[in-house]
Amino acid sequence: MRRAIERKRDGEALEAGTWESIVASYMAGHVDDAQMAALAMACAWRGLELGEITALTHAMAISGETLKYDDGPDVVDKHSSGGVGDIVSLIAVPLVASCDVHVGKLSGRALGHTGGTIDKLEAIEGFEGALSLSAFARQVRRIGCAIATQTDTFVPADKQLYRLRDRTGAVPSTGLIASSILSKKIAGGAHAFVFDVKCGDGAFMRDTDAATELAQILVEVARAFGRRAQALVTDMSEPLGRSIGTGIEVIEACIVLRGETADPRARDLSLHVAAAMLELVGIADAQATARRALESGRGYEKFLEMVRAQGGDRRALESLKVHERSESVRATRAGYVTSIDGVALGHAARELTVHERNAGIRIRVRAGDYVSKGDELAVVYGARAEAARIESAIRIEDDPPGSRPLIYFGTAR
Amino acid sequence: MRRAIERKRDGEALEAGTWESIVASYMAGHVDDAQMAALAMACAWRGLELGEITALTHAMAISGETLKYDDGPDVVDKHSSGGVGDIVSLIAVPLVASCDVHVGKLSGRALGHTGGTIDKLEAIEGFEGALSLSAFARQVRRIGCAIATQTDTFVPADKQLYRLRDRTGAVPSTGLIASSILSKKIAGGAHAFVFDVKCGDGAFMRDTDAATELAQILVEVARAFGRRAQALVTDMSEPLGRSIGTGIEVIEACIVLRGETADPRARDLSLHVAAAMLELVGIADAQATARRALESGRGYEKFLEMVRAQGGDRRALESLKVHERSESVRATRAGYVTSIDGVALGHAARELTVHERNAGIRIRVRAGDYVSKGDELAVVYGARAEAARIESAIRIEDDPPGSRPLIYFGTAR
Repeated sequence: MRRAIERKRDGEALEAGTWESIVASYMAGHVDDAQMAALAMACAWRGLELGEITALTHAMAISGETLKYDDGPDVVDKHSSGGVGDIVSLIAVPLVASCDVHVGKLSGRALGHTGGTIDKLEAIEGFEGALSLSAFARQVRRIGCAIATQTDTFVPADKQLYRLRDRTGAVPSTGLIASSILSKKIAGGAHAFVFDVKCGDGAFMRDTDAATELAQILVEVARAFGRRAQALVTDMSEPLGRSIGTGIEVIEACIVLRGETADPRARDLSLHVAAAMLELVGIADAQATARRALESGRGYEKFLEMVRAQGGDRRALESLKVHERSESVRATRAGYVTSIDGVALGHAARELTVHERNAGIRIRVRAGDYVSKGDELAVVYGARAEAARIESAIRIEDDPPGSRPLIYFGTAR
Repeated sequence: MRRAIERKRDGEALEAGTWESIVASYMAGHVDDAQMAALAMACAWRGLELGEITALTHAMAISGETLKYDDGPDVVDKHSSGGVGDIVSLIAVPLVASCDVHVGKLSGRALGHTGGTIDKLEAIEGFEGALSLSAFARQVRRIGCAIATQTDTFVPADKQLYRLRDRTGAVPSTGLIASSILSKKIAGGAHAFVFDVKCGDGAFMRDTDAATELAQILVEVARAFGRRAQALVTDMSEPLGRSIGTGIEVIEACIVLRGETADPRARDLSLHVAAAMLELVGIADAQATARRALESGRGYEKFLEMVRAQGGDRRALESLKVHERSESVRATRAGYVTSIDGVALGHAARELTVHERNAGIRIRVRAGDYVSKGDELAVVYGARAEAARIESAIRIEDDPPGSRPLIYFGTAR
């Protein structure tokens, strides 16, 4: 192991067999945390070649229970690198399934300031996010979609390595990030993936170039495993939807799925991701297909079917209401909204939702909006809601900010 | 701690207080090996500024027992970064002491392929290398010199960090190497130091530029602690003396000290180092003074006095004889000796001397010598001596190698 660390430290690429043996030895306890932490830092320093990422991904993917779908249509999955107010999975998964394409989404929990799809769904009374892999696969085959947590025995090497990287400052390594994402996707058994790599101040990757590099690596390595893949780099310089919390984000997703008046950002990106998923399994005219599924209400019906299959029901879903207590955040001056701090709002919302699943934050403005003094910028919901705590998250200045695209980059098909 | 690792990873310099608190927390067990290993690798990546090296040195120096000399003349010390056949300490320490300059040398054990001065001295029957710090200082004041091991309670932070770096591939960091060397020198309480930084294939630093950088850092940081210092960068592209082992190196040192026919390399460098030590404490005409001490036999008398003070005697010293069993290594072709592999010879000698303190290797040739087929290149001594095992360490080629200086660089006085 020391030799492997030294070689990576000196900028060499390690062979596939070396990566396999490092991961196996780490899981068996023959390589300890100190050696693994040093190796991870050397990876952050020197980077990983595509072949190394593929080998590490494979070694981690087979470290625990894996899923392989039996005969039947191809299964598609999507992944977000983590954002604030990101309700794309809640919308795109049932939309795609309502077009008779099977979607199996194994999902992580909230991490740092970003939300977790499972945490959101569990705000629906009765919803069961923890399925066994076999129950998960059965549900995908039976109703066309499922969203569930990764079990403890699913890719344990990634869990162990991620925790170690988190406490030893070795998280920001594109190669290690790619292996972490891909190991779970490969082990999850889907045939095609859409990767939504967020970039901007509210994402883990702030820089568009770094996000684009990650997007390209994810697609190339997924293809090395014989899977189809597409990646988008999308904006997280402000929250995606207008709601930040758990139940409050489910409510916003339902508004989009029911075709009610909604903020266009979350809807547009959900449609775009759904179309990319449909395209990967060969659906012609994917954009229009996704749009029709939304407009017809079929996506919403599929969402209800999934909620029912996992222990919730229409009443539980439709009785979700935002917390009755709220405080308004108001503009202390006139001017243009120049930034909306997703990290601060994400952390605040996570604190609010620890005990109350219908607490959270709704923002009323977007970057670029002009506001007058006293205008409502956001509403904070919950027994402990304090408008003052998030006031500084929405910045107002004299000049309008430059405009940013919602989608920066998409890999070639 | 995670924040400190992240800052170093991103190339920032950490404040003195941060370094002090990292070392204190590590020793108290609040920072674990994984975090420390990641930080060490980040240091290898980003380097350390002089202020950081000074702070880390101080934090480690005060992590255990320290020595402070009572009133009396200044004490001088020397340090070698580790080599093969390096008998300079055995010669220079008594030479300098015989000029009425106090020398206190706390010494490490053999490391890797390099020899340790204490291991060599303990080949003398009765010699006691383990002195308490107070007994050590008393001997320096009483007879003018002492060479002893570092006790377990001496700079424990360096011991712990070095072991960790060793198994996590984080040894080659100039800043960490400098802190490791200096923490022990500063804790050892001497007023002036000569650093002999070895470079070449038989040294830990192979590159002259890197060795020169280390030499300059050692001097600058020592001066930041108010100590006088000088550094040399000297050649280790072949073993320094002709003997490699433990007792066998003591025998060669005695030959030099008694003024008998000796290989000039070890004698010349010892005189040079001794002169630098004398100069640091203000002795005029240091070169000539050192030479007179050698030629008069006063250096040898002082060596005998030191051996007696530490439990050996003249009979024990002068009865040291090389092992009676030997095998010759002979040239398999005619040509010029182009290289003599100190790493291979050092490892072979350490294996031979594990059980037999008078085993080892004597080389008969120097790089640049012309040899005929069948000439004796070296003699291997010991019950398990096998000439064949070291044959490939001495390379013979058609063309002579370029010449190398013995001393590449010396810091300004």
